[in-house]
Amino acid sequence: MRNLLFTIAYDGTAYHGWQVQANGVSVQQTIQDALEKVIGTRENIIGCSRTDAGVHANMYCFNMRTATTLACGRLTGALNAHLPFDISVLSCHEVSYEFHARYHCVSKEYIYKVWNSPQRNPFQSGYSLHYKYPLDEKAIEHEAESFLGSHDFASFCSAHSKIRSTVRNVNAFKVNRQADELLFCVEADGFLYNMVRIMVGTLLRIEQGKIERGSIPAILAAGDRSRAGITAPAHGLYLNKVNYPSGTIV
Amino acid sequence: MRNLLFTIAYDGTAYHGWQVQANGVSVQQTIQDALEKVIGTRENIIGCSRTDAGVHANMYCFNMRTATTLACGRLTGALNAHLPFDISVLSCHEVSYEFHARYHCVSKEYIYKVWNSPQRNPFQSGYSLHYKYPLDEKAIEHEAESFLGSHDFASFCSAHSKIRSTVRNVNAFKVNRQADELLFCVEADGFLYNMVRIMVGTLLRIEQGKIERGSIPAILAAGDRSRAGITAPAHGLYLNKVNYPSGTIV
Repeated sequence: MRNLLFTIAYDGTAYHGWQVQANGVSVQQTIQDALEKVIGTRENIIGCSRTDAGVHANMYCFNMRTATTLACGRLTGALNAHLPFDISVLSCHEVSYEFHARYHCVSKEYIYKVWNSPQRNPFQSGYSLHYKYPLDEKAIEHEAESFLGSHDFASFCSAHSKIRSTVRNVNAFKVNRQADELLFCVEADGFLYNMVRIMVGTLLRIEQGKIERGSIPAILAAGDRSRAGITAPAHGLYLNKVNYPSGTIV
Repeated sequence: MRNLLFTIAYDGTAYHGWQVQANGVSVQQTIQDALEKVIGTRENIIGCSRTDAGVHANMYCFNMRTATTLACGRLTGALNAHLPFDISVLSCHEVSYEFHARYHCVSKEYIYKVWNSPQRNPFQSGYSLHYKYPLDEKAIEHEAESFLGSHDFASFCSAHSKIRSTVRNVNAFKVNRQADELLFCVEADGFLYNMVRIMVGTLLRIEQGKIERGSIPAILAAGDRSRAGITAPAHGLYLNKVNYPSGTIV
């Protein structure tokens, strides 16, 4: 048995998130269907995180313990031939048998895209949040500095009934502008359910003057979802990078 | 009566090109439908060029002679509210009554996008040509220099029965790489039917070794469509810029 680590990218528009579920097509199920055609057996694959319906991934990782003897390069090519155009397998590497794509992930980076122009961009309708009024990326990044470090993010979590701890460590939060496109880039050791979307929604509410500047520390301290802003829509969110310890690939 | 010049952008995926036609939804028809809802009369709008089914536009211009007294800013907003997400009105300006979006255009720029990576990009499947094998942008640009200047482009035209002259002047042909994305940028005083797509298809055939390097001057001289390469697919092509004489906007 080998354990294989796959890196993929996908356009999440057509999917009900990563995880297999009863009421919609998931990315996981679509990949397991394609794998079954390639290797002839139904394998359970282990994703690095759940992603919500409509969320995209520039980089997503999953691992699979399998008896197949097909070389990684052959698997990549064959999988791409069987997958729809909105999912692409970028690479495949052998890892240790113990490796687990979710448990061994040390940090992840998400990007939230905002199209910041009075006019919408016809190529971005499902791929960024359209925000018509001027946004000051430096002012937003200054507010976001309050997220840096280790905090209880209970105020920035949609549902946390089954979660042991709502403490996470945010390593970086940058807001970069590329012409009319604003990119919110957040790296953390882990993310709660809807955490990035609520952080972005809160920052936008601050820019709108509906939440006071400088109040993120108080919102964090309150541990109350109702104190934070809206949950920004899924279609602006991208899982952008998944980090594992060096030496993961054998 | 005023004459108004509109600038729009559109994702051409869902449209059978610009021009109204019997067997499919066109961009022109979609805009005329939206205009009718906004100003209450059915106006004929004049586009700067035909574009093929599936071709996109970062910038496209049309003009309309109209009795409406609505201010340009109001027209832009109201039109965007009635248009689908894949068409965006970027601006509206008053021009002289004689102005004609096609006749008065002095030059246009097209961009052809190639996703040049062994793995496909799930976000680019309808928005660039996927080309798996390495391409040398400098070598391609060098071949493309033979297109510069005034030539008879009959070899690079799919159908030219009704065209008086197949001579066009190419002002610029650049091939730029942004990581895995190759951008072919062509500016000319005018373009024949499928001209950019055949130029790109021919350049790719040269890179593949299926057409000899340095043979573009001979293909141009032959005046024979069969001497050139394939017509590259529509979904990689973008009308990028439309130029009018300075002083067009009154």
